[in-house]
Amino acid sequence: DRTHILNLSCTDRPGIVARVTTSIAAVGGNIAESAQYWDRSTDRFFMRILFTTPREVNHAVIHGALRSAIDGFGMTFSLTDGDRVPGILVLVSRFDHCLLNLLYQIRVGWLRAEVRGIVSNHEDARTIAEQHRLPFHHLPVTRDTKPEQEARLLELYRDSGADLVVLARYMQVLSNGLSTALQGHAINIHHSFLPSFKGAKPYHQAHERGVKLIGATAHYVTPDLDEGPIIEQETERVTHALSADDLVAVGRDVEARVLARGVKLHLERRVLLNGHKTVVF
Amino acid sequence: DRTHILNLSCTDRPGIVARVTTSIAAVGGNIAESAQYWDRSTDRFFMRILFTTPREVNHAVIHGALRSAIDGFGMTFSLTDGDRVPGILVLVSRFDHCLLNLLYQIRVGWLRAEVRGIVSNHEDARTIAEQHRLPFHHLPVTRDTKPEQEARLLELYRDSGADLVVLARYMQVLSNGLSTALQGHAINIHHSFLPSFKGAKPYHQAHERGVKLIGATAHYVTPDLDEGPIIEQETERVTHALSADDLVAVGRDVEARVLARGVKLHLERRVLLNGHKTVVF
Amino acid sequence: DRTHILNLSCTDRPGIVARVTTSIAAVGGNIAESAQYWDRSTDRFFMRILFTTPREVNHAVIHGALRSAIDGFGMTFSLTDGDRVPGILVLVSRFDHCLLNLLYQIRVGWLRAEVRGIVSNHEDARTIAEQHRLPFHHLPVTRDTKPEQEARLLELYRDSGADLVVLARYMQVLSNGLSTALQGHAINIHHSFLPSFKGAKPYHQAHERGVKLIGATAHYVTPDLDEGPIIEQETERVTHALSADDLVAVGRDVEARVLARGVKLHLERRVLLNGHKTVVF
Amino acid sequence: DRTHILNLSCTDRPGIVARVTTSIAAVGGNIAESAQYWDRSTDRFFMRILFTTPREVNHAVIHGALRSAIDGFGMTFSLTDGDRVPGILVLVSRFDHCLLNLLYQIRVGWLRAEVRGIVSNHEDARTIAEQHRLPFHHLPVTRDTKPEQEARLLELYRDSGADLVVLARYMQVLSNGLSTALQGHAINIHHSFLPSFKGAKPYHQAHERGVKLIGATAHYVTPDLDEGPIIEQETERVTHALSADDLVAVGRDVEARVLARGVKLHLERRVLLNGHKTVVF
Repeated sequence: DRTHILNLSCTDRPGIVARVTTSIAAVGGNIAESAQYWDRSTDRFFMRILFTTPREVNHAVIHGALRSAIDGFGMTFSLTDGDRVPGILVLVSRFDHCLLNLLYQIRVGWLRAEVRGIVSNHEDARTIAEQHRLPFHHLPVTRDTKPEQEARLLELYRDSGADLVVLARYMQVLSNGLSTALQGHAINIHHSFLPSFKGAKPYHQAHERGVKLIGATAHYVTPDLDEGPIIEQETERVTHALSADDLVAVGRDVEARVLARGVKLHLERRVLLNGHKTVVF
Repeated sequence: DRTHILNLSCTDRPGIVARVTTSIAAVGGNIAESAQYWDRSTDRFFMRILFTTPREVNHAVIHGALRSAIDGFGMTFSLTDGDRVPGILVLVSRFDHCLLNLLYQIRVGWLRAEVRGIVSNHEDARTIAEQHRLPFHHLPVTRDTKPEQEARLLELYRDSGADLVVLARYMQVLSNGLSTALQGHAINIHHSFLPSFKGAKPYHQAHERGVKLIGATAHYVTPDLDEGPIIEQETERVTHALSADDLVAVGRDVEARVLARGVKLHLERRVLLNGHKTVVF
Repeated sequence: DRTHILNLSCTDRPGIVARVTTSIAAVGGNIAESAQYWDRSTDRFFMRILFTTPREVNHAVIHGALRSAIDGFGMTFSLTDGDRVPGILVLVSRFDHCLLNLLYQIRVGWLRAEVRGIVSNHEDARTIAEQHRLPFHHLPVTRDTKPEQEARLLELYRDSGADLVVLARYMQVLSNGLSTALQGHAINIHHSFLPSFKGAKPYHQAHERGVKLIGATAHYVTPDLDEGPIIEQETERVTHALSADDLVAVGRDVEARVLARGVKLHLERRVLLNGHKTVVF
Repeated sequence: DRTHILNLSCTDRPGIVARVTTSIAAVGGNIAESAQYWDRSTDRFFMRILFTTPREVNHAVIHGALRSAIDGFGMTFSLTDGDRVPGILVLVSRFDHCLLNLLYQIRVGWLRAEVRGIVSNHEDARTIAEQHRLPFHHLPVTRDTKPEQEARLLELYRDSGADLVVLARYMQVLSNGLSTALQGHAINIHHSFLPSFKGAKPYHQAHERGVKLIGATAHYVTPDLDEGPIIEQETERVTHALSADDLVAVGRDVEARVLARGVKLHLERRVLLNGHKTVVF
């Protein structure tokens, strides 16, 4: 059997589910998971269906079956091969906890992904790459070399065939150009509970403000820094007794978990964009 | 428009969703919410659909439209009028925090329900009933009068037309007979994180064991005490510095919340039974 | 026996604890609880001690015993009668969930306090006040009458002998003057996880931003709106499927809990100010 | 300067804190952290003090200064060198997530410890040991060889000079003899929220019961299996949609975190035994 994941959105109207699921049944599809959401404020409808079909039913066949529904309802849609292991390109600077957790979760099968390469502006992660027999790309960056470095990065991404760029504590702000080129295909972990503490050194900001919870946010990269659609968040209780450095240490766990979950949700095609927000099935 | 909620389960086979949603579309239904689950271990399929139809489409019409699907797939199913406010009968002993939270959540509209009556083996809750202009039934109970008391309770439930009996810290064990009569129609709050600390005085058991988290569990009542299908649970952090009585106090919040959520999930028909477990959509 | 609570802070130096606890022992005091914190970044030391003494040991005696330590270390300190039930004045507008939870927690003894009065710019809470036989003060406010209304409010607070003003969803911004007059003696509940979503309609802001967690913050009132020292915070998971109005409903629980905990911490003298941050023992 | 950690417990009486802190001040000690707890039900007093002294003040000097307090109050006490990095011996079977997290947290400095060796009944962890240049001891075990294997294990522990044995998903039940020998010096991670789901395969038990939260428990090893004093616990929300194997995967994170926290609390001498319960400062 083959597994397929269909994501779609369109203006809400009666009969969408019936049309789509009937088309799937028509090609011998069996629905294993489905979820839907109707945004009353925008009257927009969102759906994700995971279904299996006989081997011979390929994407062309499914497209053919769905064609009239897609056209009739004016659907935005994507069809993903659920059997193919998706590829990711991981960007990292010095902190390696998010990278290590991704590699670990891939190894034990919780995260179904293949790392196509590790890119860093530092040399620190090279050993990890070697231990895991993964391509390592050292792309140092200065203010002057940023355009070239980003061009090289984009090239690496395209050559790698990766589906997603993961900024796993990559401490460089991407240019508008690169952010735009990667939009919808790059996830960043921000080490605060956005929209609190945007920008640099969020744990130090949090310590300064005296909050009783810290957090982390996995979001899509957009040209507007720390304003991208939020995929996943979590908080952790802290006390007055922790220094800013303690918060950095405590925050590692929550960052690593939130990023891994965000990446998993994306790769399983559970995240749909709804303007600058996400629908997460 | 009318709102309907359809719950169904059957052995998994291709085409279920298409058949059901096509039947719904055929009577002019528009699907607002749907969720499904396929239990691979038992090969059983579960689905909940909330849909709207024109005024004139009543249950008989929908039944007619779904008839061949129901028969063809051997479905267990229920169709609920989504516009009718469901009724509950609340049982309480001395602690009134769960009762008060239910009344509050109903008043502010978070919980859509109508209290048909309050039943207690004590007089304490009478004032609350009077303030809310609700029928209050004092049904004291002793070992000897238990059969009659329970008979009276069941009669009250039936006369009230309530959809659900809520044991909101009702500190009497129901007999096998009454538990069976109410099966699937009675929710209890147990003041521990089941299966930890079954039976009496769970906070004292928890204190004795020195746990670092306490909890509460909303579950369906079954003849097998504290073994009913679990609907909702939550835990709360505690420390060595709290006495057993402190745990009782700290636990009030979590009990009140967990019970209210369990009742809401049930009344919105989001809970389906899967053997002695629940599917919660 | 008598119970006393001693809070103190001073520049850190060796021997503080020994001096203070020896003075307490000298008047026959037995320490039941103590907590301390040394802020390395400011080199400031904070301590809270709860101790019992024989009946005849009054505050003058304890002050006498501690005098040389207080002077020698240049301590900021306060001594509180642990047996006296502290008074609160509750300010409320239309939403009453925070008020009701305070009243409930007082009734069941989790919160040791006495409500000296309920003040509102609306009439809605009058019934609650009457049911609880509490003084109700209707102080409507317009832009023009604000100075008089606030003068009346401050007068009520002073006449009531309350230790704390609790803004339990009081939807008026206090003027700089009143904020300053009440500084350290007024706690507000802000219905967001500060510093996210300051200002008006935080749930609508949260919905707009598409966050995956909402929260509430109990903080001291300062002239700088939503910037007061944070006492307690908590978050709650939400999804894309909730509207802004749903967030308002979901948020009630977390607001009510966070405010009650903040008030309890303050009244038990567990909160010490450390600049614009708090130390919470 | 030198750092010392003093833990003590005794029957509660007035003057304990004054006596102890005065003795500390007498040798030039400056208290950086202190915490205390009075168990009203047993009238037992517990205290932990972290203090610094000049270089030349060694344990003999401190013992001398504290002698009369210790004798006078009949204290159980321990004095720990706060500057020495404590050693641990890690036992592991096939699952390596808890081991990896310990190694990671040590590397980044969150956990202050030195791994003296890794012991396993399998060969799987050898590579990890080699990458970290740590001694690896393969001690396979069968029913027949268990006595010898345990004797060897105990010998390794003693030779290593480790302060603590950490059972990081070591899937062998220790004999009564070994449990007793290690009592208070061995921490196990149980992959459930004890006392729920004792014994084997707790995630499968949890799945079978249909709980809505899973958890993990770090506890001291005692001859009475899964009944040892609990140090730390945490839960994680799950749904009906997760299989038993999914629970195993989801549980890794919570196990790894809870164990690392339990080990950190122990090594920082924050855990005191109170009968079969713990006081955690």
